[in-house]
Amino acid sequence: MQRYKGIVSYDGSEYSGFQLQPRDRTVQGEIERALKKLHKGNEIKIQASGRTDAGVHAKGQVIHFDSDLDIPAGKWELAINAMLPHDIVFSTIEAVDTSFHARYGVKGKEYRYFIHLSERRDPFKRNHAYYYPYKLDIGAIREALGYFVGEHDFTSFCSMKTDKEDKVRTITSMKLMEEGDTLIFSFEGNGFLYNMVRIIIGTLVDVGRGKRKPESIKEILEKKDRKAAGKTASANGLYLWKVFY
Amino acid sequence: MQRYKGIVSYDGSEYSGFQLQPRDRTVQGEIERALKKLHKGNEIKIQASGRTDAGVHAKGQVIHFDSDLDIPAGKWELAINAMLPHDIVFSTIEAVDTSFHARYGVKGKEYRYFIHLSERRDPFKRNHAYYYPYKLDIGAIREALGYFVGEHDFTSFCSMKTDKEDKVRTITSMKLMEEGDTLIFSFEGNGFLYNMVRIIIGTLVDVGRGKRKPESIKEILEKKDRKAAGKTASANGLYLWKVFY
Repeated sequence: MQRYKGIVSYDGSEYSGFQLQPRDRTVQGEIERALKKLHKGNEIKIQASGRTDAGVHAKGQVIHFDSDLDIPAGKWELAINAMLPHDIVFSTIEAVDTSFHARYGVKGKEYRYFIHLSERRDPFKRNHAYYYPYKLDIGAIREALGYFVGEHDFTSFCSMKTDKEDKVRTITSMKLMEEGDTLIFSFEGNGFLYNMVRIIIGTLVDVGRGKRKPESIKEILEKKDRKAAGKTASANGLYLWKVFY
Repeated sequence: MQRYKGIVSYDGSEYSGFQLQPRDRTVQGEIERALKKLHKGNEIKIQASGRTDAGVHAKGQVIHFDSDLDIPAGKWELAINAMLPHDIVFSTIEAVDTSFHARYGVKGKEYRYFIHLSERRDPFKRNHAYYYPYKLDIGAIREALGYFVGEHDFTSFCSMKTDKEDKVRTITSMKLMEEGDTLIFSFEGNGFLYNMVRIIIGTLVDVGRGKRKPESIKEILEKKDRKAAGKTASANGLYLWKVFY
């Protein structure tokens, strides 16, 4: 038996999220179906770095699984990609030590969030960026970003549907890049709570519109109350970009 | 009654082409449905520069229609876009003279074709570019392009399903741009036959793979036989880019 680590990219538009569900089409369901085909009908379970919600994308989701199939290095990706729908693509699958665990070994993650800022919608971006038709004060948003960096209790920026008790997380880096009419936010941290990035984005949009001041982020964090923060921004702009081990 | 000219962009992935069909979802069907809503239930017919096939996209399709609705200039786009699904977006709608006709007035068109050249599929490009996993000889393709420019009988590059008798067309410009791992072909001409761009692309891919020589294009044109040319490349890479009047 050999353990394999796989890096997988997917367009989440047509999935009910990553995690296996009895009735709905999920990314995990498709990957396990492809592995089952490769293993002549034997079920292979995968472990991922974490789940992603319906409509959320991944550029670098990480999974692991165990297999005794004898496929040469460099051919695993081709074998599984040939069994997968075209909106799920493995970039690499490599043999790793059994001490590797895609979920328990996570040291940190990078998420990115894309906002398409334009007077007109772009029909080709509708599933891959949050569309926002009004001008935003980028300077104010950049100022607000700084208040998130560091160790904080992110209760205000976590869905109340969570089952996690400990809401202290460390954000190590928050960056904003501008590419044409698209804003790209990059968040790196040791862990992210349920809907955390999307609630941060919803709050930053309020700052950009002048509805909140950049320094209000400090108070929102201190309140430890979901209702103090902004709306949850839409799933279509969010990408699990990279997982660190 | 006022005539309006509209420029519309659409992602053709989820449509059975442009032209109205009794059962299937089409771009024309959606636009006429939106116009009917705006006109309180009165049917408004549109005329387009031409149809596009299932899965083919448009950046600058042109249509016209007549209306007696009193909507101020600059607000028409907002009014109709609000009634349309997000994969169909008007960039402009302007009042024109009744002598303007979206179909009969066409002087020429530009089509673009996107090929994603990479060892790995990109899940985010699957509906918007033709994926090709092998290396192509770009120099040979550029050489072949030259043979298409000018006035030719394009019978060899036209689907046999066409009902057009006259297959002589003039291609005024053929360009190839490279953007990262994507090849972008631009074709301009006074008219394009059914599947013409897609058959040209299928044949150019053969040239790029070394299966045909660049100068073979001349013979293929002379044969006036669809079977002499290459395969019809997939619809997902094709965009009606611009219409000239």
